[in-house]
Amino acid sequence: MEEKIIYIAGLGLIGGSLALGIKRRHPHYKILGYNRSDKSRIIALERGLVDEATDDFKAFAPLADVIILAVPIKQTITFLKILSEIDLKENVIITDAGSTKLEIVSAAEQYLTGRPVQFVGSHPMAGSHKSGAAAADVHLFENAYYIFTPSKLTGQQTIADLKDLLSGLQARFIEIEAAEHDRVTSQISHFPHILSASLMEQAGDYAAEHEMASRFAAGGFRDMTRIAESEPGMWTSILLTNKAAVLERISDFKQRLDSVAELISQNDENAIWDYFAKARQTRKEMEIHKRGGLESSFDIFVDVPDEEDVILEILELLRGTSLVNVHINEENREDINGILQISFKNANDLEHARQVITSKTAYKVFIE
Amino acid sequence: MEEKIIYIAGLGLIGGSLALGIKRRHPHYKILGYNRSDKSRIIALERGLVDEATDDFKAFAPLADVIILAVPIKQTITFLKILSEIDLKENVIITDAGSTKLEIVSAAEQYLTGRPVQFVGSHPMAGSHKSGAAAADVHLFENAYYIFTPSKLTGQQTIADLKDLLSGLQARFIEIEAAEHDRVTSQISHFPHILSASLMEQAGDYAAEHEMASRFAAGGFRDMTRIAESEPGMWTSILLTNKAAVLERISDFKQRLDSVAELISQNDENAIWDYFAKARQTRKEMEIHKRGGLESSFDIFVDVPDEEDVILEILELLRGTSLVNVHINEENREDINGILQISFKNANDLEHARQVITSKTAYKVFIE
Repeated sequence: MEEKIIYIAGLGLIGGSLALGIKRRHPHYKILGYNRSDKSRIIALERGLVDEATDDFKAFAPLADVIILAVPIKQTITFLKILSEIDLKENVIITDAGSTKLEIVSAAEQYLTGRPVQFVGSHPMAGSHKSGAAAADVHLFENAYYIFTPSKLTGQQTIADLKDLLSGLQARFIEIEAAEHDRVTSQISHFPHILSASLMEQAGDYAAEHEMASRFAAGGFRDMTRIAESEPGMWTSILLTNKAAVLERISDFKQRLDSVAELISQNDENAIWDYFAKARQTRKEMEIHKRGGLESSFDIFVDVPDEEDVILEILELLRGTSLVNVHINEENREDINGILQISFKNANDLEHARQVITSKTAYKVFIE
Repeated sequence: MEEKIIYIAGLGLIGGSLALGIKRRHPHYKILGYNRSDKSRIIALERGLVDEATDDFKAFAPLADVIILAVPIKQTITFLKILSEIDLKENVIITDAGSTKLEIVSAAEQYLTGRPVQFVGSHPMAGSHKSGAAAADVHLFENAYYIFTPSKLTGQQTIADLKDLLSGLQARFIEIEAAEHDRVTSQISHFPHILSASLMEQAGDYAAEHEMASRFAAGGFRDMTRIAESEPGMWTSILLTNKAAVLERISDFKQRLDSVAELISQNDENAIWDYFAKARQTRKEMEIHKRGGLESSFDIFVDVPDEEDVILEILELLRGTSLVNVHINEENREDINGILQISFKNANDLEHARQVITSKTAYKVFIE
């Protein structure tokens, strides 16, 4: 494949990590970057994330075979409009990295239809507490979902070409319609952020009159409010670009709160029990339950005493295998023997582990 | 101090762990136990949690200097009534371990007033996904809040005597009025469980029509629904014994959802930003970054490259600490601080790990 010129607008955590992922598999591609502020632009050049960088978005656009807009949603839409007004390479591929997709895909279709360009929406589903080019990490997208949302401007080859360009990310590529992406993420990401922030505010206001509220808050409360510390700007634009889906989830949820309140008022013990039991069962059945991540994990159980040394001994034997979780199962504990549960990414590593542990130790091994 | 006879009714996780904590500091005290089912009663005897055990609650009550009711809330109230009908030692101290306090304290005052007994409500704020005498752990309450809720039957010495009895728990003892305890816990524990269960049910129903919802669920969603897997029976009785406070929190929260929905409908960007910023600030200022409390886990996040060697290097440093789980966060990384997540049995080991890793490696460490 011939050398290509890739233009990444926005050299923060996402844009910078995409650059590293592209260079990992395509070291000869030329990567041009745009960043408004000097800081990340200079760091990106120093770290070699990009070969050249500008603070004038229009400057490199005409040179690019692929343009990746890794800027906030509003700016992404502004840049799509600008791209519609300048001469670009024939069949240039344009994509983005926004957390909501319908408004961006619609803007692309509105501004770019009739132009000789390809467009597909992108949502690399990864992030970090860190930000800026300094935080760019070639590992950021490994095993993360990278979602493509096709548009009227997506050609036969558009997504295939991007998958090749981005293969170094080692992400899990998925195609989904933009509106459905926004509905799904409203449920599992956008609305939960509202719940978390609202619970945090409610508890904060309550603690002003009930000071123990902040002292006793722990465990479950801590889990439920963790994402309330997310960056306000990003979540503001997410809500404003996914209004319909988010508002629908809010009103659906209020009805659920009403029905729980009704059960409590009526002392309907059985119905409340069923409500908690259903929620518990639903979560156990959902893929999120797997400690190994979104994919089903491959577990081996080793019957060892509950001692760090033994655990390290086992892990030493497994050097190089793709283990994703190590758990000391106290639940299944026989008085003396703890049961060590190790989860792997795939069946081969599981089988390898079984052979190594059985051949090199005397511990009993179980596979479920 | 003379030998005492302690009677613990309910030899599950809480009762069994209390027994271990008492023996730790008062090995000569005699501990009698009650448990209806054979299983935990037999395990409690085998593990030496108690010196003698019965399945007849009344049997040991007259012998006791201290009676601890570590059974479900309803049964606690039933046992208080039974205790009012039998002869007890003069000035016997009676306490409980329920998650809500007002109904229990009221029942104690109703049934025991005029009798020569002392009563104070207790809420040891620790728990586990494990249960039964087999899961009893002398470390369970270390650094956790142990709350006393005084009653009309609480004497000058009652709480001081219990603090001495329970000093081996190494818990943080606090006194608070029963009604205030229930209000505070409705906000930071009871209502959040409703939020979590309702979000889980909502997502489950949504996933039936939008299958990607279960595939993409990760990070923040997993955090927010973790407590939806709690034991239904316990939470049903908690809601039913704290109705007023919980219903008030539900209706307050619905108003907050309404105002967020209003801001979104009106595209009030600044107000939405302020809303998220306030929640973020409130959480940063709250004491929730500390340990101790319901379902408290002791997790450290280490920002390392996803390589077995690095993980083994870290685990080597942690030799001898009570780690219970090692997780390599390789799923969608949004909202996750660092790749390596290590969970410990108690706050001391967590702090030890933090110091060792920060002093001996260059990896960033996050707690909470």
